[in-house]
Amino acid sequence: MAYQTENRRNLMLFAGRSHPDLAAEVAAELDVEPVPTNAYEFASGEIFVRFSESVRGCDAFVLQCHSAPVNTWLMEQLIMVDALKRASAKRITVVAPFYPYARQDKKHRGREPISARLVADLFKTAGAHRLMSVDLHTAQIQGFFDGPVDHLFALPLLADYIENKLDTSEVTVVAPDSGRVRVAERWTDRLGCPLAIIHKRRDPDVPNQVKMFDVVGEVRGRTCVIVDDMIDTAGTITKAAESLKAHGAAHVIAAATHGVLSGPAADRLKNSEISEVVLTNTLPLPSEARIDKITELSIAPLLAAAIKAVFEDGSVTGLFGGDA
Amino acid sequence: MAYQTENRRNLMLFAGRSHPDLAAEVAAELDVEPVPTNAYEFASGEIFVRFSESVRGCDAFVLQCHSAPVNTWLMEQLIMVDALKRASAKRITVVAPFYPYARQDKKHRGREPISARLVADLFKTAGAHRLMSVDLHTAQIQGFFDGPVDHLFALPLLADYIENKLDTSEVTVVAPDSGRVRVAERWTDRLGCPLAIIHKRRDPDVPNQVKMFDVVGEVRGRTCVIVDDMIDTAGTITKAAESLKAHGAAHVIAAATHGVLSGPAADRLKNSEISEVVLTNTLPLPSEARIDKITELSIAPLLAAAIKAVFEDGSVTGLFGGDA
Amino acid sequence: MAYQTENRRNLMLFAGRSHPDLAAEVAAELDVEPVPTNAYEFASGEIFVRFSESVRGCDAFVLQCHSAPVNTWLMEQLIMVDALKRASAKRITVVAPFYPYARQDKKHRGREPISARLVADLFKTAGAHRLMSVDLHTAQIQGFFDGPVDHLFALPLLADYIENKLDTSEVTVVAPDSGRVRVAERWTDRLGCPLAIIHKRRDPDVPNQVKMFDVVGEVRGRTCVIVDDMIDTAGTITKAAESLKAHGAAHVIAAATHGVLSGPAADRLKNSEISEVVLTNTLPLPSEARIDKITELSIAPLLAAAIKAVFEDGSVTGLFGGDA
Amino acid sequence: MAYQTENRRNLMLFAGRSHPDLAAEVAAELDVEPVPTNAYEFASGEIFVRFSESVRGCDAFVLQCHSAPVNTWLMEQLIMVDALKRASAKRITVVAPFYPYARQDKKHRGREPISARLVADLFKTAGAHRLMSVDLHTAQIQGFFDGPVDHLFALPLLADYIENKLDTSEVTVVAPDSGRVRVAERWTDRLGCPLAIIHKRRDPDVPNQVKMFDVVGEVRGRTCVIVDDMIDTAGTITKAAESLKAHGAAHVIAAATHGVLSGPAADRLKNSEISEVVLTNTLPLPSEARIDKITELSIAPLLAAAIKAVFEDGSVTGLFGGDA
Amino acid sequence: MAYQTENRRNLMLFAGRSHPDLAAEVAAELDVEPVPTNAYEFASGEIFVRFSESVRGCDAFVLQCHSAPVNTWLMEQLIMVDALKRASAKRITVVAPFYPYARQDKKHRGREPISARLVADLFKTAGAHRLMSVDLHTAQIQGFFDGPVDHLFALPLLADYIENKLDTSEVTVVAPDSGRVRVAERWTDRLGCPLAIIHKRRDPDVPNQVKMFDVVGEVRGRTCVIVDDMIDTAGTITKAAESLKAHGAAHVIAAATHGVLSGPAADRLKNSEISEVVLTNTLPLPSEARIDKITELSIAPLLAAAIKAVFEDGSVTGLFGGDA
Amino acid sequence: MAYQTENRRNLMLFAGRSHPDLAAEVAAELDVEPVPTNAYEFASGEIFVRFSESVRGCDAFVLQCHSAPVNTWLMEQLIMVDALKRASAKRITVVAPFYPYARQDKKHRGREPISARLVADLFKTAGAHRLMSVDLHTAQIQGFFDGPVDHLFALPLLADYIENKLDTSEVTVVAPDSGRVRVAERWTDRLGCPLAIIHKRRDPDVPNQVKMFDVVGEVRGRTCVIVDDMIDTAGTITKAAESLKAHGAAHVIAAATHGVLSGPAADRLKNSEISEVVLTNTLPLPSEARIDKITELSIAPLLAAAIKAVFEDGSVTGLFGGDA
Repeated sequence: MAYQTENRRNLMLFAGRSHPDLAAEVAAELDVEPVPTNAYEFASGEIFVRFSESVRGCDAFVLQCHSAPVNTWLMEQLIMVDALKRASAKRITVVAPFYPYARQDKKHRGREPISARLVADLFKTAGAHRLMSVDLHTAQIQGFFDGPVDHLFALPLLADYIENKLDTSEVTVVAPDSGRVRVAERWTDRLGCPLAIIHKRRDPDVPNQVKMFDVVGEVRGRTCVIVDDMIDTAGTITKAAESLKAHGAAHVIAAATHGVLSGPAADRLKNSEISEVVLTNTLPLPSEARIDKITELSIAPLLAAAIKAVFEDGSVTGLFGGDA
Repeated sequence: MAYQTENRRNLMLFAGRSHPDLAAEVAAELDVEPVPTNAYEFASGEIFVRFSESVRGCDAFVLQCHSAPVNTWLMEQLIMVDALKRASAKRITVVAPFYPYARQDKKHRGREPISARLVADLFKTAGAHRLMSVDLHTAQIQGFFDGPVDHLFALPLLADYIENKLDTSEVTVVAPDSGRVRVAERWTDRLGCPLAIIHKRRDPDVPNQVKMFDVVGEVRGRTCVIVDDMIDTAGTITKAAESLKAHGAAHVIAAATHGVLSGPAADRLKNSEISEVVLTNTLPLPSEARIDKITELSIAPLLAAAIKAVFEDGSVTGLFGGDA
Repeated sequence: MAYQTENRRNLMLFAGRSHPDLAAEVAAELDVEPVPTNAYEFASGEIFVRFSESVRGCDAFVLQCHSAPVNTWLMEQLIMVDALKRASAKRITVVAPFYPYARQDKKHRGREPISARLVADLFKTAGAHRLMSVDLHTAQIQGFFDGPVDHLFALPLLADYIENKLDTSEVTVVAPDSGRVRVAERWTDRLGCPLAIIHKRRDPDVPNQVKMFDVVGEVRGRTCVIVDDMIDTAGTITKAAESLKAHGAAHVIAAATHGVLSGPAADRLKNSEISEVVLTNTLPLPSEARIDKITELSIAPLLAAAIKAVFEDGSVTGLFGGDA
Repeated sequence: MAYQTENRRNLMLFAGRSHPDLAAEVAAELDVEPVPTNAYEFASGEIFVRFSESVRGCDAFVLQCHSAPVNTWLMEQLIMVDALKRASAKRITVVAPFYPYARQDKKHRGREPISARLVADLFKTAGAHRLMSVDLHTAQIQGFFDGPVDHLFALPLLADYIENKLDTSEVTVVAPDSGRVRVAERWTDRLGCPLAIIHKRRDPDVPNQVKMFDVVGEVRGRTCVIVDDMIDTAGTITKAAESLKAHGAAHVIAAATHGVLSGPAADRLKNSEISEVVLTNTLPLPSEARIDKITELSIAPLLAAAIKAVFEDGSVTGLFGGDA
Repeated sequence: MAYQTENRRNLMLFAGRSHPDLAAEVAAELDVEPVPTNAYEFASGEIFVRFSESVRGCDAFVLQCHSAPVNTWLMEQLIMVDALKRASAKRITVVAPFYPYARQDKKHRGREPISARLVADLFKTAGAHRLMSVDLHTAQIQGFFDGPVDHLFALPLLADYIENKLDTSEVTVVAPDSGRVRVAERWTDRLGCPLAIIHKRRDPDVPNQVKMFDVVGEVRGRTCVIVDDMIDTAGTITKAAESLKAHGAAHVIAAATHGVLSGPAADRLKNSEISEVVLTNTLPLPSEARIDKITELSIAPLLAAAIKAVFEDGSVTGLFGGDA
Repeated sequence: MAYQTENRRNLMLFAGRSHPDLAAEVAAELDVEPVPTNAYEFASGEIFVRFSESVRGCDAFVLQCHSAPVNTWLMEQLIMVDALKRASAKRITVVAPFYPYARQDKKHRGREPISARLVADLFKTAGAHRLMSVDLHTAQIQGFFDGPVDHLFALPLLADYIENKLDTSEVTVVAPDSGRVRVAERWTDRLGCPLAIIHKRRDPDVPNQVKMFDVVGEVRGRTCVIVDDMIDTAGTITKAAESLKAHGAAHVIAAATHGVLSGPAADRLKNSEISEVVLTNTLPLPSEARIDKITELSIAPLLAAAIKAVFEDGSVTGLFGGDA
């Protein structure tokens, strides 16, 4: 003889301490409150986390943005997931809009780590069942996690902004290096523009390993939109802008999903040939980067829509207007 | 009280039935015989494998080339690994010069598999401790396997041949699509040549999804070397050759590590604008592809050197003349 | 504060390409359509699969029949399971009416694989939570899978047919070799008939390993029903029939669940002493085996009933009229 | 096209054969019948278990009390969990009110096992998703299990009894050894009493390792309540009582959650200075221990309340009147 | 810069408390002493184990015989393996001459455990890398363990004894039930004798499930050797002997690897039609079974030879005189 | 046919960036150089690590001290282990003298993490085979890691110093709280001194949760040595010293293994009643804590001896002068 109950599903949103503004925006879009959480660091630097409400049986979404100090935020998220697992959450989805250590996705030479795979395994070990992220540095990172990954794209958001602002017949999309050409091609598909790429090669006139920035493709008189998944120290993109100008570009604009903007980035952008930098808020904007040139678009509606689709077993593919 | 013995290490080479010539070459380079193996298919298609010598405690290297019928060869290799595990081999390295399902390394759209990750997990499950492969379609596949991966590069082999044959001052390296630009850049670094890329884009004069092949970069009067990791049906590369010729290229040559050459490939190459196709023998050359235009270089010395370095705990990184 | 939804369960049926007729029958019994699936092989032999509908949260049943080319169908099923896992299916049941590699369920001698265990691990690794199969070659294969296995029996279906057709007082049930005696005993329990077995032994008059077929038990003047789990090349069963006739059997009939019928099977059966061969359609009947002697009974109602019971948390044991 | 059903949840209680009275009490509190189970030992000592009702999809709670013969009851519970896993129970919670091998929770010296961790891993391997236990010997055992652990406390039950019976202004709480001081401190927090501890140390007047029982803290004229998590052979606690009397204690009472009471325990308690022993029924009282001095309080209401909270996704923390 | 040492291998033999005579014999054959081990049960029934010598880096063989109390000996062996793992043994081989719970190797009906698989997983979880066993109840149990299994056969030992004692031209080998026919066939292959089987079937003259023992094959005037892997309560084998005598058998002898001999076995054998029972000492002979009829052959030389071969990376297959 | 080589073992020491002085000391004791390692943080905070020498086949010891910023050092060590795993190190031992997050070794209340278990799992996931640590906060943490743990004790080092400095007949060992009494008892065993404990309890004269520090045991006129595993913010220990002085203690000294000394610790110690603080260098001494009162003893000889014993398969237990 048994005892029965109805089976309800319960979405709960948990937010690390890295980017409270984005958490608040996502919560507002979902019309929920993030679960009240007691999180702090002891004097020794160790992190403590405790949730103030029962989470038993919930469908947990754990949002953290992996800006600096990235190891602290990563460890906090792992600890949150551990606490959820031990408190009997039913399903745990890690929401990492900017996937940490994404650039270490292969061994460039021997005896290097593959930290992006390590991070996927750490999430799994802590207890995560699923991952959600935006514009992974390489799409193969999906395959690093042993479970479902919802891979969201900011391209529609960024491209809409560009299309509304510029005359696309004057635009050339520019890949800032050889690894980003495929991304750039997605932009040319969308905007119907020509493509150029910045190619780093050995300068034949200078011995040794000195590289020069070559522009492959036609940019003279064009409005160049350099596209990338992220802007970190802004070294590559500002040098690319110089080369484009030197090759006769009329204007240079940059568009990227993730504004890491670490170290000298804000200064470099301020002093660069780039007239506007369009970013999303997958990472909190450093205070020194709150400058006029930088336009920040909100990723919160996309994240909230994806969380809702996951929770309600809807199609996430459908969010991008694709045929699936 | 205990009973002691000396600890020797014992390299044993096992070869699937896919590419006996390569197995023989590698064995000769190592100065070993492949372990005699009884492998066959029952009438029902199920594969049986049994080794004819004790393999207890050996350091096993299991070579299989994943040409068609790829699923048969993959399953045979998994069964070989299972038999080795159960027969107490000490360490098992899967040697898959052409990694199977490497192109399905991400979800291009929703509800697709990531078969390249699946294959890595199948190898692990069967009992493989390590993988060795040549020119993975994307280097991130290293991160799909939970263990050491020896990733070998055929570039020195192929580029030596090109350098000996051509005047590199007349050469332009060409990436046949946007995903291969980074590979092409490694060639330009090595040869000191300029770069061009084939860019597929919507034809503005034709509605809908029709694509045209655009050449980005200067190729007029140049000897174009199209470089890729593999040539499968040869559709992309022969159309690329046409575009290059149409843009004034003097000669077109193709260089790739893996000659899959499936379906119409041999015919297409025969009838194409390409004057020479340089490949390695990571896969057996289909009989219909034994044509004059195709030059096959042997990968066996590289594989044997890597196996030897792994066995003797030497540096594999050192095989490529790198600084490590 | 949380956001709630009702929790529905959703049965979805997925079918590999091996046996579309059976898939259609099972779907009809369940009153569902198999989920539209885009599955094909590239020229290189690698398989691609994509589902055309959202599968998020579904209770997936993935039907594949492991006829030749068995490795292709096995790999296709593994890829389907991987795609379902990554697309957030909630529960995945592999339906393999004829379990592949079931006969390699132990090491007969040293240095052999145990491929039936390997296959169970491959299904698990790909993401399967459960297995369903019919008349496993040995029941111990249930223990190879780390999870629930629904083991269905075709005996009631086959025995009903025999009982309707023959006078069971004239029937002797015959085990075609020593490994099948337990199966034959289940038939004698059901039909209340005597038992005979075919015993292979060394011929005392012939040196070396030549074997002769001995009949143990009384068969003179009887209608012999040779029972087995499968008929593959039909060598054993047709030789058994000869021995039975030589020992005075009046008629010989064969009944088996799985009609592998590979290689010379159809010819051998056609030219044999066996007057009727009763099979189920767990495997597609090869075209050359569409002969009068062969009677095919449909396993679809049993599969559909089991799938329904699993989906609705009913008793599968109850399907066989047992006491549970 | 799919086929849908409603998703119900179904609590089922399973009980091993170790403590039928407690199982009956818990079942009565929950208003369910334990699932009829056929469990017995073969003559060889091997255990067989079979459930007489379908358990497919249920939320299973498997109660076993790990009294002697502890290995038999542990193995029976593992086998029950295995049977549930293979019969498609949806979630399996091991209820082990007295965690077996809890005292082997660390290596005291080299080359010892950590059996308490081993037991956690055995439960996990058999198929348990969750654990529930009462007053773990050390709270760290929670961390031995890779999943949620509901750790219940008998302190409120025991302390209520003491408070009702004694004048707490005359009570001193006594830790019987250095490892139990933290437990004793929880009692002083609850009762507002002073603390004493029994400290074993080398006797300075006797050579070698002979230990003497020192009383640290003031006990003269006080009612001493010795508190512990368990009473096993009762050696420590009865010697502690003697020391307390020798130091002038007026009365000595003992309170513990788990009454293991093995070997000489009943006799020792009978003949000791302890006037009353208060226990719960997490273990069955050995027949020789059914003596007047021993008071047994029922743990069943606490277990039933916790099972109910787990089943209904309520808060277990809330059961103890805490702030969570 | 590094620091090097030579790599020796060190065989260490560990013995549980179940069968000290066999342990001593195996140790003598290997010319080692079992590692001194402190193992005992606390009054509560919990087992404690500690090794008295450093085991760091050793190749450990852990011998236990799973006679009654089987759960105690199983748990003791698991705890020994755990202690070895945590003490840095390099490789751990479980030696279980009589595999525990081997008869529960499948679900006979729904909602049963597969305890033989569970046991394999428990060994793995505790830390075993390899298993060694003699005459597994079904050979498929090899596939339950995820690692190498050395499966030894006592047939040569037992058959040598029979051949030396009897005139094999007068012998008929008898399978005591349908599940043992394959084992009996191995004996007929070896001895060149005819085969008979005992077939349990419904008595047509008695309603319901009453079974009668039918003899299939010719036994009149023959010396019948009933062969089995084990004799447990001796019910089946003594009834088989009666049937054989009733069908005219001249003599009945029984040969089996494992003498479980539990409950009424000794009495039944004493009072049976069986004139001699030949067993090995994979299990300790119960004292009541020390009767004249029972002949015990030592399995120690076979175990020691296999352990030696495993330690020295020799061939175990070769021990049986096979072609491998 | 095979190819053989001798099997050497190769100890390699790897050091994170947290405590270069200790690494240098350990290396000097072992007479090796730490493997040259390129480790740094990108501007974004992500860590990169690469080893400059081949590590293939080595026995790797990876030393990191988990002082602040603890998450950075933990992540660096995980990345080092990942790189070693992928570069084919044969065995990887994590050396964490001060185990990070050791104090979060249980859920104190519901919905908390067990971070100490999480850390053990993270090490395992990254690829660690073994752990080495000094004076774990609770010994049960050994059981959190699924593999061998070498647990070293600083007690002999610290107690030697105390014995040389003080007249032990005047010493009382003091446990600063109820959780440390067992540690203190190990000191009294060693020094042959009496014990006292600081007991925090509710002040009966003050409502609510205010606690007062009670001294249990006799301290008047004694030299009190407060012992603990670590001193973090020094709040507890300095208040304990005040209570001891208030109860008439003549002198107060503190001894602890780990000097975390975070936040206000240095100031508190400087201004406290404690006349000397004896620590080891398992953590780097913060610069503000380089004060006269603090005596630092080196743990390097113990770590080096243990590493050597592990590498050479010697006994680590023997390092502590125990009987094992």
